[in-house]
Order: sequence, then C-alpha cells, then structure tokens
Amino acid sequence: MTNARKPVFLVIGAGAGIGGSAAMRFAAGGYHAVLARRSDAAGLDRMIDAIKAAGGSASGTLLNAAEDGSIEELVARTEADIGPIRAALYNLGAQIGNRSLGQTPHRIFELGWRLGTYGVFRLAHALLPAMAERAKSGPHGTLLVTSATAAVRGNAGQHSHASAMGGRRMLCQTLNAEFAPQGVHVAHVVVDGAVDAPDTLGKLLGDRFDAFKQAKGEDGVIDPAALAETYWHLAHQPRNCWTHEVDVRPWTDVAWWNDNPDPQIDSRGKGFAGPPSA
Amino acid sequence: MTNARKPVFLVIGAGAGIGGSAAMRFAAGGYHAVLARRSDAAGLDRMIDAIKAAGGSASGTLLNAAEDGSIEELVARTEADIGPIRAALYNLGAQIGNRSLGQTPHRIFELGWRLGTYGVFRLAHALLPAMAERAKSGPHGTLLVTSATAAVRGNAGQHSHASAMGGRRMLCQTLNAEFAPQGVHVAHVVVDGAVDAPDTLGKLLGDRFDAFKQAKGEDGVIDPAALAETYWHLAHQPRNCWTHEVDVRPWTDVAWWNDNPDPQIDSRGKGFAGPPSA
Amino acid sequence: MTNARKPVFLVIGAGAGIGGSAAMRFAAGGYHAVLARRSDAAGLDRMIDAIKAAGGSASGTLLNAAEDGSIEELVARTEADIGPIRAALYNLGAQIGNRSLGQTPHRIFELGWRLGTYGVFRLAHALLPAMAERAKSGPHGTLLVTSATAAVRGNAGQHSHASAMGGRRMLCQTLNAEFAPQGVHVAHVVVDGAVDAPDTLGKLLGDRFDAFKQAKGEDGVIDPAALAETYWHLAHQPRNCWTHEVDVRPWTDVAWWNDNPDPQIDSRGKGFAGPPSA
Amino acid sequence: MTNARKPVFLVIGAGAGIGGSAAMRFAAGGYHAVLARRSDAAGLDRMIDAIKAAGGSASGTLLNAAEDGSIEELVARTEADIGPIRAALYNLGAQIGNRSLGQTPHRIFELGWRLGTYGVFRLAHALLPAMAERAKSGPHGTLLVTSATAAVRGNAGQHSHASAMGGRRMLCQTLNAEFAPQGVHVAHVVVDGAVDAPDTLGKLLGDRFDAFKQAKGEDGVIDPAALAETYWHLAHQPRNCWTHEVDVRPWTDVAWWNDNPDPQIDSRGKGFAGPPSA
Repeated sequence: MTNARKPVFLVIGAGAGIGGSAAMRFAAGGYHAVLARRSDAAGLDRMIDAIKAAGGSASGTLLNAAEDGSIEELVARTEADIGPIRAALYNLGAQIGNRSLGQTPHRIFELGWRLGTYGVFRLAHALLPAMAERAKSGPHGTLLVTSATAAVRGNAGQHSHASAMGGRRMLCQTLNAEFAPQGVHVAHVVVDGAVDAPDTLGKLLGDRFDAFKQAKGEDGVIDPAALAETYWHLAHQPRNCWTHEVDVRPWTDVAWWNDNPDPQIDSRGKGFAGPPSA
Repeated sequence: MTNARKPVFLVIGAGAGIGGSAAMRFAAGGYHAVLARRSDAAGLDRMIDAIKAAGGSASGTLLNAAEDGSIEELVARTEADIGPIRAALYNLGAQIGNRSLGQTPHRIFELGWRLGTYGVFRLAHALLPAMAERAKSGPHGTLLVTSATAAVRGNAGQHSHASAMGGRRMLCQTLNAEFAPQGVHVAHVVVDGAVDAPDTLGKLLGDRFDAFKQAKGEDGVIDPAALAETYWHLAHQPRNCWTHEVDVRPWTDVAWWNDNPDPQIDSRGKGFAGPPSA
Repeated sequence: MTNARKPVFLVIGAGAGIGGSAAMRFAAGGYHAVLARRSDAAGLDRMIDAIKAAGGSASGTLLNAAEDGSIEELVARTEADIGPIRAALYNLGAQIGNRSLGQTPHRIFELGWRLGTYGVFRLAHALLPAMAERAKSGPHGTLLVTSATAAVRGNAGQHSHASAMGGRRMLCQTLNAEFAPQGVHVAHVVVDGAVDAPDTLGKLLGDRFDAFKQAKGEDGVIDPAALAETYWHLAHQPRNCWTHEVDVRPWTDVAWWNDNPDPQIDSRGKGFAGPPSA
Repeated sequence: MTNARKPVFLVIGAGAGIGGSAAMRFAAGGYHAVLARRSDAAGLDRMIDAIKAAGGSASGTLLNAAEDGSIEELVARTEADIGPIRAALYNLGAQIGNRSLGQTPHRIFELGWRLGTYGVFRLAHALLPAMAERAKSGPHGTLLVTSATAAVRGNAGQHSHASAMGGRRMLCQTLNAEFAPQGVHVAHVVVDGAVDAPDTLGKLLGDRFDAFKQAKGEDGVIDPAALAETYWHLAHQPRNCWTHEVDVRPWTDVAWWNDNPDPQIDSRGKGFAGPPSA
C-alpha cells in the first residue's frame, strides 16, 4: 500500500475552506491527507476526489468531534490503518456570531469550550506523545491550530467564542513549552480576517455572502489556498527556526489592534487620546 | 436590619488570603461582605468574626461553585435576603501545580475550565444584567476578577490552568465590551507573584511554605491586604476612568515578561538574541 | 523650612490636566509638589496658587524638556534646594495628531522620540540611582509615566507618536527590571481615552473641544482628578504588591483592543472572521 | 542589462548572517540582490561572489546607515541605476549587550534609536510611497523588518535596545496601517533566539561563540538560511493573506513569554503564583 510510505496529514474540520485547502496543499506536497468533518458526506467525497484528481492521496470520515472519544479513536485508527501522523491541523471553531450575554445560554458557552479549547487538548493528548516519541529518531511532528482574532481580544458579543479561543491560545503555549523541546512544533495561527469559505462563513452569511465579498473588494477576503501555503511553510520550518504564532489578514483589512480609521470624531472611538504634551 | 442599607460585596472564593482580605477591606469601607468558600466552616466563621470584631458587617456560606446552579442561587439569595450586590469578587482559581500533558487527565482539564472560566461566566450571567439595570439610576457595579500570570502566558505544565485563565481573560474583555457602557465595570487582575495565602499557597506548599517565604525575602510575597487595597481602588474609580486590566507582583519578583536574569550563557535561555547590527 | 520635611513630588509636564491634577493630589497627601512645564508662566502660577489655597505646598518652573541638560538640572536643583524626590511623574507626550508618512518630516519624528522616549531615559538616568540609594534605608521611590494607547498599538497616522510611546513602554520595562529589586517602582499608565485637559486636548481641538466632550456624553472623557487618584494609589502600593502597567478609559469608550461595534458589514472591519466550524 | 528585468531586493545590514542569507535566497528566487553593510568590503565581496557563483545576481555597497541621507541616497541610486525595489529588508539592530542604566551613556541610547527605530522610518520614508505608487498597477511591495524579543519585552540591561525595538515594532504597525491598503506589506519578524551569525553574535561572543553553539545543542541556534525561507514566504504571501508579525526560535529555546523552567523554588521566579482556589 503506497500510502503507508507517505507521511500522514490529519485535518479535523475539513470543510470547503481552510481545512480542505490545507488537505489539498499537503497532498500536493506528498502527504496522505485524512479529512474529518462533522457532516456532508457528499462534500467530503468531493474534496477527496478533487485531491485524487490532482494526483494526491486522501481519505476521510465524518466525525462528531464534540463527542468524547471521537478524536481519540480517529487518531488511533489513522495511525493503525494508514500510518504515523506527521502533521495535524485542528480547524474547528466556535464562532456563533455576536450574542449578548443574555442571549448566550450556558450550554452554548460550554459547547464553545468543547469545540474551541477542549478539542485541541484532546487531539494533543492523543497525538503529541506519539509524535514526540517518533521525533527522537525521525522528523519532527507538527500541530497546526487555526485560531481567530478572538484569541487575542474579546469583542462585544463574543463571550463564548473569545473565551474558547483565549483558552486555545494559552493551551498552544503550554503545549509548545512542553513539546517543542521534544521535537513537536505547535503553531497558533491568528486568522484576523474573513475567509472565503463557503462551508462556514458562506453558511453564516447565506445570501449576503456574495455581497460581503463584493464589499470587501479585490483580494479582500482570505483565499484559503493562500493560507494553506502559510500552513505548509510552518509545518516545514526546520526545527532551528520555529514559529509559535503568526497572524494573517487581507491587505485591505485593519489589523485587530488598529481602530477602524475614522476622520470624524465619534462618540465611542478614541478621538484624540494621548498624554498631554504641555 | 442595618445591613440592608449597606452596599453588598460578594466574594466567591473567600479563603484566608485574597478573598478574605478583600472582604475585610470592603467591610471596613462600609460594605456588607458576603463570603462564600468551598469548605472549612470554622475558617469561614473566623473570618466573619474578625470582620465583625473590626466593626464591619459580614455573613457567609459554604459553596460548591463547580456545581450547576450554586453560584446562581447564591446571587439570588443574597440579593433577596441582604441587598443588591454592588461589587463582586470572583476569586476561584484552577491552579493544580505543574503537570505534564500525560499527567493531566481529561476530567482535571475540564474541572479547570469549570472553576477557571465557566464560573466567571455563570456569575456574570447571574449578576451583571441586574447590575446594569441598577446602574441606570444609581451607582455603577463592579466585578473584580482575580487572575494569574497564566492568563497571559502558558508555561510548561500549566495546560489546565493556563487555558482556563486565558479563557477567563478573554471573557473579562467581552464582558467589559458589553457591560462597561451599561455602567458595570469588570477588572481583570493579573496576580503575577506568590500571595501569602495560607489556605491556598500554604496548603499547596505545606511544610515548605515558611521556607518559601524566607527565600523570597522581606516583602517578597504579596500581602493579600495590600492587594485588597488595589481591589478597593479599582471598585471605586469613577466611571470616567476605569481600569480593565492591572498587574501586581512583589518588588523582588521578575515580571512575567522578563527572563530570570542569568549572567551565564545557559542552554535554554535567550543568550544573546537580537538582530545583527552588521 | 517646612517643605524640607515633606517628600517631594516632581511633575514634568504640569499643564492644566493630568500633570496639574496629580500635583494637586500629591500636595493634598502631604508632598511638596514641584511643577515644570514648557510655557505659560501665568498658568503655572495659577496652579501653584490653587495648590496653596487648598492647603498644599508647591513650587514650579518653566522647562524646555527637549533641551539637553534641562531635566538633569531640574532634578539636581530640586534635590539640592527642596529635598529628595520621593515620586516623579513624566507627563510629556508626543501627540501631534494624525499625519501620513509623507506629512511626517524627519525632525518631527525625532522630536517625538526626544519628548516621548529620550526624556524618560534622561529623567530616569538623573533620578533613579539616587532613589535606589535612598531606598536602601528608607521608603521606596516611584516613577509614574503617563503613556498612551499608542504604546501598545500603532494606528494610521501615528508614526511619530506610536514609535515614541512604544519605546517608552519598553523602557519602563527595562527600568523596572533593573530598579524594582532596588526599591524603585516604575508604573506605566496606558491612558486609553480622551482626557479633559484644556492645555493639551483643548488646544489640539480648539473650538471643537466643547462639542467633542458633548458628543462623548456624561463622564465620557477622563477627569484628570480621577486619574490622579490612580496615580496616588500606584505610588503608595507597598513594595510587596507593585503594578507595572495599568490602563484607564471612560466607561463609554471602547477599549483599544476592541473594534468599534458596527452592526453592519463594513469593508474595513473584521466582519465575520473566525475559524471555520465545519 | 539583464538585471533591469529582475525585481530588486535591497538588504540594509547584509552581514554574514540573516542579511546575507536573505540576499542569497531572494537571488535564488529571481531577484537582483543589493547588499549594504557598514564595513568589511572584503566580506561584502565574498557574499556577492557566492550569490553569483550560485547563479544569482547581486551587487553591493558599504553604507553608514546612521548618517543622515545615506539610506535615502542608496534607495534613490538603486532605483535609478538598477531598478525598482520590490522588497527590502531592514536588518540593522542595536544590540549592545546588557548594560545597567548607569553604564548606558546618553549617546549610546540615542545611537540605539538611530539604528533601531529611526533607520526604519528613514527607509520607509524613502521607499514606501514609491512602492505604493507601483502597486497601483503592478505587484505589491514588501518591507521585511528583522526585530528582536526586545521589541515585545524589556529585560534588565536592555534600556537602549528594548526602547529602540519597541519603537520599531510600533512603527511597523503604523506603516502597515497606512500602507497595507495601498499594496505595501510590512512584516515585523520577532527573532526570539540566537542566530548563527558570525558577523554579529560571533563578534559579540568572540572565543565563546563555539562553546555557546555547543551548549545550545543540535539545531539549537537559528540557521539564517532557514530564517531566510520564512522571509521569502512572507514576501510572497498574496495580498489576500498577509502576515504582519511572526516569531521564530529554535525548538530547544524557551519562548520569550515562558519562564526558564526550574523545578526548584527560586527567589526571583514566580514559584507558585496563581489565584487561590479556596
């Protein structure tokens, strides 16, 4: 079985956006891609077929990542049936749109954590010790984690999402602190802009998706294939030069730390803040 | 009942450390303090007695904050029986010492989140809308949140604690983003040093607690009474000048962002990093 | 001379805003305040008179802080003629409003650094070693540094201001790293909102100042007297519990890390960023 | 002249480390590399010869970047004589080793700013408007800025270096805020580890350089050729997916935000900090 010779790239959250594009890119680079997503078996098959049509190697499964044991079982089965996982991408989010505190039920908040933070912990728990063991005598392993602006700042309405992503970010740091010196590289990617992803943003916006992209202008939303190149780069930095955190956004977007520029004095913006010079 | 006239200060996590000292300080400033802690009814009574002996007003209860409904019920009961909560302190942590990923069971990781992140959400959910309602025609409300260095960086062994605190920090930001303009002030306090707290650090270190304090030297650990003054200050900043985040540490401690100074070249430290000037 | 018995509080940048209010607060607390500002001798006299009328002790001088030797000479003269400086406030800014790179001449950029970064270095150089010496056998010294949002994020048009403030912030960290363990406390205050300061913001906005405050609403700009309370608190934290950095803003302002809330999809904002959950 | 057809890559600070390796990488990718460094004409020639021997195109010059007009003239001359600069790398640092405040003379502090902050401003001033003009109808331009851990935290002894790098970082943000939407990409690279650079770290450490690398272990210092791949990647991200900041370090290094792990209780470290859980 030729796939056994290829390093394995596991994607959890392989929709037609970042996850699928990353699978395509790693398959093009010689990996066997394993795609897992929650639903839409037909969509999953289309992605696998597309990878194969491009000359790559891929397989996939539907997966309810929120269910205890599901990620663990997928990792075990993949390593047993296909081969050692050289790189993995955790690409599940917890974005539910903006909701006030009153509109954020406890179970939603908890689900946000289950998908946003706990899932990364579970994947790491199931995978990183084996990666570290293999790194003693072979190439290093990589865990790529798609993250969001909400990991570094908590906006109004983002109670669930931001706390889940903030937990995710700190977890990536503790994972690196323990596993980087054992030869496992964890990269936390702050996606600070909208992604041209029909399965997520597309579904969230529905009919308005096209208008949104139009309003953003040329190259105004992140092409997941472009982001996949950055993922590929991160996974192949030699171990003397590893990136733990990186941000990306379209050229026309304001970085998260900047205000929306507003020439007018507005009532919520900073106006003319700054220390006195008198 | 005279207490009804006093504003109420609710402390969740009122051990003989930060929580108890804050209760003492707010009681001295004219609040009725409500102390809640998980265990040790005798210790709880001693704190309440000490507050009363100092001329203050206080009451208390044991509380298993991890149990669903417990915080919610405490808030409702306090407001019904004693009076509106003007200020609250969430002072529960999730520090379990350093554990490798392999030594961090899933249930421990989840418990860290329950106490570290979810409890803040539950308290906010139960309390902030009422505070906002009262702020329309009265003084503003305050939610003080004791936090830790682990909220801003994830050290080795801190998988549970850091991800819980990172989630806590982002949640405090989303709470401020929604509630500050409604007259509720949330302050996230990064306690970046050891606290002289017999009920927590004391129990964690056991026999070594005295040796630890000795090694830290004079004023080398945070006096919870000193920190309580900062809490008092934060809760009484007028609404034109609110602090969202503050850090504290002893004078002799290295701030979390600094290396331990080491005149030697060591194998893990930065050595002589920096861009070339050639 | 009774003033000799009082600890001295030196303010560099003592306009009718943060600097003047801090002087008033520290004088009320028992310090002799020394006020230095660039121009407006009449305004300086009015502030000194106001402090005295309130029962405080104060003196002052005009000072061109950008001139080499000026700060150094002021420190030396103050310590020789009045007494040891227990606390100092560096309150000079470098805000010149928003200018594109093309509209930011080299000499303006350099002047920004001279006032924004180099002045703090010069004051520290002249004062901190003496403070550290005195702290060996007496109370600790404090250097308060007014800073701005621009110290933590660089907005469009802020080339000069942000780079000067970014340098200021890192300098405050290196000063604490060296001097905190010697008993000198440096506090970096991120003023993340407009201040009701007629000598600075007032002059910058001119006729629009009143309209600006009106637009901001009740308590919508920082009252410098309120901020002065925070300065007082910082300068009197016992050395077991020191704050290195704190932020302040009005309740109605968006914190710098948050977007201006916008219910509409806009072309520069983040829209619906976040990792996919598919 | 065939070089006129190649895009130009300008390196300011082209020693035998990051700068030289980046020049080699970009030349291999089809750029004409222009190398500028302060001294060592023979070393400069060796690098140019090496690039040519590898089939690349390069030229170079000695440059005193601290001198007013020098960078400006180099940019003008390069564009006039060789061709439009598509990408530039500012690779000058200001690391002078650790010095206490007392050992940091004013002129050293100022020189740190001149090389660390002002030089980036001068290069941007001279180059970015032209890049933006060209981006209207052609490929985008890139300014890569080598930076250091000192840009994000100020360690003891780093007064000059950290304040210069902190200013550099904020300047990169203001440059992106203005120029990214005009088609110019500025990338701030936090080099958070020692680089195997004979011209800088090698000279700083002298005889101890080999021992240092030995102590760091296999792949324990950053290979500048590896870092050059990350620079190449950044400069070629499509404009829908730009990184503003990235960090790199060797696998065995502790990230700057982490403590050096120490199983012992030590007198300066954090020990057992964290909020109480009682």
